[in-house]
Amino acid sequence: MRILVLGGDGYLGWPTAMHLSAHAHEVAVADNYLRRRLCREEQVNFLYEVPDLDERAALWQSVSGHRIAVHIGDLSQWDFVAKVFEKFGPQAIVHYAEQPAAPYSMLHRKAATLTLHNNLSVTANVIFAVREFCPDAHIVKLGTMGEYGTPNIDIEEGWLEVEHKGRQHKFLYPRQAGSLYHTTKIMDTDLLWFYVRTWALRVTDLMQGPVYGLFTDETEKNERLLPFFNYDEIFGTVLNRFVVQAVAGYPLTVYGKGGQTRGYLNIKDTLNCVRLSVENPADHGELRIFNQFTETFSVNDLAARVQETGSELGLNVDIQHVENPRLEAEAHYYNPRHTGLLDLGLSPHYLSEDVLVEMMEYVIKYKDQIKHDQIYRKVKWA
Amino acid sequence: MRILVLGGDGYLGWPTAMHLSAHAHEVAVADNYLRRRLCREEQVNFLYEVPDLDERAALWQSVSGHRIAVHIGDLSQWDFVAKVFEKFGPQAIVHYAEQPAAPYSMLHRKAATLTLHNNLSVTANVIFAVREFCPDAHIVKLGTMGEYGTPNIDIEEGWLEVEHKGRQHKFLYPRQAGSLYHTTKIMDTDLLWFYVRTWALRVTDLMQGPVYGLFTDETEKNERLLPFFNYDEIFGTVLNRFVVQAVAGYPLTVYGKGGQTRGYLNIKDTLNCVRLSVENPADHGELRIFNQFTETFSVNDLAARVQETGSELGLNVDIQHVENPRLEAEAHYYNPRHTGLLDLGLSPHYLSEDVLVEMMEYVIKYKDQIKHDQIYRKVKWA
Repeated sequence: MRILVLGGDGYLGWPTAMHLSAHAHEVAVADNYLRRRLCREEQVNFLYEVPDLDERAALWQSVSGHRIAVHIGDLSQWDFVAKVFEKFGPQAIVHYAEQPAAPYSMLHRKAATLTLHNNLSVTANVIFAVREFCPDAHIVKLGTMGEYGTPNIDIEEGWLEVEHKGRQHKFLYPRQAGSLYHTTKIMDTDLLWFYVRTWALRVTDLMQGPVYGLFTDETEKNERLLPFFNYDEIFGTVLNRFVVQAVAGYPLTVYGKGGQTRGYLNIKDTLNCVRLSVENPADHGELRIFNQFTETFSVNDLAARVQETGSELGLNVDIQHVENPRLEAEAHYYNPRHTGLLDLGLSPHYLSEDVLVEMMEYVIKYKDQIKHDQIYRKVKWA
Repeated sequence: MRILVLGGDGYLGWPTAMHLSAHAHEVAVADNYLRRRLCREEQVNFLYEVPDLDERAALWQSVSGHRIAVHIGDLSQWDFVAKVFEKFGPQAIVHYAEQPAAPYSMLHRKAATLTLHNNLSVTANVIFAVREFCPDAHIVKLGTMGEYGTPNIDIEEGWLEVEHKGRQHKFLYPRQAGSLYHTTKIMDTDLLWFYVRTWALRVTDLMQGPVYGLFTDETEKNERLLPFFNYDEIFGTVLNRFVVQAVAGYPLTVYGKGGQTRGYLNIKDTLNCVRLSVENPADHGELRIFNQFTETFSVNDLAARVQETGSELGLNVDIQHVENPRLEAEAHYYNPRHTGLLDLGLSPHYLSEDVLVEMMEYVIKYKDQIKHDQIYRKVKWA
């Protein structure tokens, strides 16, 4: 299948591109290196250097024999989007091309405006490009479990049958997010759902939980194929950050009580979830929603797991409950359903001791490059 | 109270500015004449010429003794917004500054992009400006009943208590709109609700139904103070269009079966609803939602009312069921609640024979200026 991966430079975009390429799909990526620019501007570094897309694609071709076409440009600009879609004629689009960090979106007005404008513009352009150039193509959009927030009732998989005063209606599950970033994902879903109904688009919206890890089947061929890895509070995801903190001898920064519970998944499962979605497309006029995670943990659970593994590796890992910079429930009901991707054949990689050891041992190689002052700068959200 | 009316040139913006000014408030308006530009570009005319804001403000001052400050600029641009907020220091903001037409948002890609970008950018800028310059100010935002769509259960006033598997949660009423324009209003609500929670803003979100009419207490002083009046399918609201069609001898264009039911209100009630909301502000951290309409009609009801009044004035009014250019239910359950504004003291002006006669007689004065080819151009939405 011809698959266009938007945001192909990202933490998940590049591994996804290689994974689909390894599974005999014809893959093109598009990116404008926005994430790298934002990291530079906010003075946060990746744990290790990561080659640019042209270099990565050349390296991937040399180790796998598969070619990934690279398009560098800004997907919030229609002319670039139109050019890429017209040239490549995708049968599926994997849309990661968004400003992906909740804390970044809460930094200041310019960051908020960039997030809102970039994320909505790219999603709209993807919709318009599919309508114009490839109306049969399937859009696989990365959403987030954060769209649901933490309601006091079970989180169903995308939809909710509501009974009210003796009558019934099936709604998109009502959403209420905890950051501007997550709110733009709600808006994406609203936008996609509108055009699915109006233009009979085919869309899968993946409500993904926080991802951890860096190794995939494809990165085994060469470590320069690893995704970039943030450990700062702005762009790093929580388990990745805790692993780096453990290695750096920096107390694990648990926000508030640490009872915040979310659904997590290994980066390997992200790739399989996306591939399964692409290979089993939604129908025309269908907005298919999957809750994409494999197990739930509280932040306290994660900290305890990292502390335990760290101790076994001879690290002295402290846990520190710091003032919560976010506005969020620190103890709450959380029961999200997630059967759709399992039904498609997902075989989860659960968070095991081995997984943590492998991550930690790799991070130890870069211990001297960890910049302590980037780990936690107390960016307040409210 | 110092009240800033954003979109102060519009069909509702200008009458609102005068109304608040007449009620002893200090009023400033801001607008960039976007609606006029879009009408020119789409080659649709107002029924009669309307002076620009400076001329209207001067005329209003000459007849009322009250000054309305005029700021011309683009509210999607932060620098302009910051300048106006800093200078005027509003205590309340009435936010009409959006591309307001559902059909326009469905015309083509550029119109869709403009609608999405303009509407979200202005709302975001208003939020950021309130946070920065006047955190105690109350935002009164014009939403639309169209955010709810036509669900099979009662439409409550903004919120819905859901019981699910023995547990309960109160959500924003789940929304699903019928046009891109309406979808941007859903996004506005999502955005406002997020920042209300995060920054304890004070917001009233008015879910308004289609408005009809042109006369207000303030326009009685001089007919050059009348709001602009569209009768085309793109920018005109349905009852206004039907009145013009009746006068022009153009069959009333009922889309499909005509069972589409909505909540309507007289322009006089819009002004009172907005004023009552401003004078009774929401609390900090409150997103207060009112469903702003006074009575429900189907399109068939409206056509029959216009036909009847037209006949009494000696007009020969035909009704034509044309192919529906929209994707919408043409017969559906519709039971929206609307008690919040009545509780604040709204005294509705219902749609009476007198109201229709007054409108029709005024439109008859401009009968020769009605351009038949602008009434219905069959703009398809899907």
